[in-house]
Amino acid sequence: MTVDVVTVPTDHDAPSELFEVPGPLTTPAGVAERRRTPAEHARSLVQNSILGTLSTLTRDGDPWGSLVSYGVLEDGSPVFLVSRLAEHTRNLEGDPRASLVVAEQAREGDPLDHGRVTLAGRVVRPEGERLAAARAAHLAAVPSAQIYIDFGDFSLFVLEVERVRWVGGFGRMDSTNAEQYRDAEPDPVTPHAAYAISHLNEDHADALLEMARQLAGYTDATEATCVRADRYGLDLKLRTPRGVAHDVRVTFTEPCTEPNGLRAATVDLAKRARAAAAA
Amino acid sequence: MTVDVVTVPTDHDAPSELFEVPGPLTTPAGVAERRRTPAEHARSLVQNSILGTLSTLTRDGDPWGSLVSYGVLEDGSPVFLVSRLAEHTRNLEGDPRASLVVAEQAREGDPLDHGRVTLAGRVVRPEGERLAAARAAHLAAVPSAQIYIDFGDFSLFVLEVERVRWVGGFGRMDSTNAEQYRDAEPDPVTPHAAYAISHLNEDHADALLEMARQLAGYTDATEATCVRADRYGLDLKLRTPRGVAHDVRVTFTEPCTEPNGLRAATVDLAKRARAAAAA
Repeated sequence: MTVDVVTVPTDHDAPSELFEVPGPLTTPAGVAERRRTPAEHARSLVQNSILGTLSTLTRDGDPWGSLVSYGVLEDGSPVFLVSRLAEHTRNLEGDPRASLVVAEQAREGDPLDHGRVTLAGRVVRPEGERLAAARAAHLAAVPSAQIYIDFGDFSLFVLEVERVRWVGGFGRMDSTNAEQYRDAEPDPVTPHAAYAISHLNEDHADALLEMARQLAGYTDATEATCVRADRYGLDLKLRTPRGVAHDVRVTFTEPCTEPNGLRAATVDLAKRARAAAAA
Repeated sequence: MTVDVVTVPTDHDAPSELFEVPGPLTTPAGVAERRRTPAEHARSLVQNSILGTLSTLTRDGDPWGSLVSYGVLEDGSPVFLVSRLAEHTRNLEGDPRASLVVAEQAREGDPLDHGRVTLAGRVVRPEGERLAAARAAHLAAVPSAQIYIDFGDFSLFVLEVERVRWVGGFGRMDSTNAEQYRDAEPDPVTPHAAYAISHLNEDHADALLEMARQLAGYTDATEATCVRADRYGLDLKLRTPRGVAHDVRVTFTEPCTEPNGLRAATVDLAKRARAAAAA
């Protein structure tokens, strides 16, 4: 492979040279590239927050947004605990259509270059076993709701998800359907990813650079920064004499199955990179 | 005044003793209590963020939420820079009704016990001088938008605010109208409030306690924590032998007019409290 510069396909009505990025100089070694599916991204994002913005419809059909806390049922459905006194509750009683936006905590850089998901569907009041599960899910996520969950004006609503839109940041976005969302597993390492990323960047920049050169095909990389970590691998940002390459993937030998799996998986990547350099 | 316990009026369908809180034991001294109006809260919140959730209507009239960055015009109207490729843009082209939710950064404690505001109205495409002002306002808030503001698929939209709902946290909420919102001044000290609060709590707990005892009428307070700071004063959380008192106000002699005004205003409060203790 001798590709030097790749023009990323884009629908933006803009000069195409803005989207030229350096590609790998050799064929990436080893494990086939693997990334989370849009459904896995969405499930992981929803699972790892307890706060979102709910969009509902007023009596006049106007769109109305409000902040809500939520828990998550095993099938990924969000559970809200809402007061009859709140406008969104009156809205939902009039029209059950709703959507929930959950966003990652903002990081450095452009505020829109980080993950969020929109779940759209209809709310229902759960009954029987579903009600018991909804109550447990909400209290697990928001323990302080114990204080008001039994107030007479509060009810539990479950959003039955019909449509899912995931946006990972600039140029990373996709839609998925209710079935794929429900069947996707939340990424177990997400709660530990932010710590792992800073640790790698602060203490193991040399190992990241070796991964970029030996495993990702960027033999001319001069600096590597980890920007994302998930159960399947790491995304690196690389400096090369040909420019900056974003979202360069290095894939783990095996996906992580445990919350604390990132450490062993990245140590294994570093070993593979060192072995390839020595070969 | 000999009030010992106050039952806060509430519409919640819940046991009223949950809402009993200890009141002041003596008449609060000095300056008349002053708080920000709901419109001032809303303007300050919107001014001090650049990221919110926009609710729009799909072709079927379903509510659809998505993350947007925004700038703010002098009259408080948010300005969005949206791509024709994005679903919210197609929604707004079909129906201009929209609302924007802006939330404070989450703090400790219950995730719903912090500030947020909903601005509802209709979007318009600004023209002439309004377009130039909108462009400048958006770029001032989101400098990185310079990269894509001139792409052919991007347009500026202004939300003309018709209705405003502010929620400060549990039991602190109110609505305001477009005129009051437009005329309210954003609180100049908000960007410095978080630092001032931690500094007061870490280094001046004794001064806060003296303020509670001498200026707020809680002569039996044993511990005081600052929970909020704004141009007009501080909100304290107090421990007393009669229970915990929330949102106890101590009002500055003069409102702050400058971003860095909190320091002088709190030093003045501490002096007033010490003078009252010595009297």
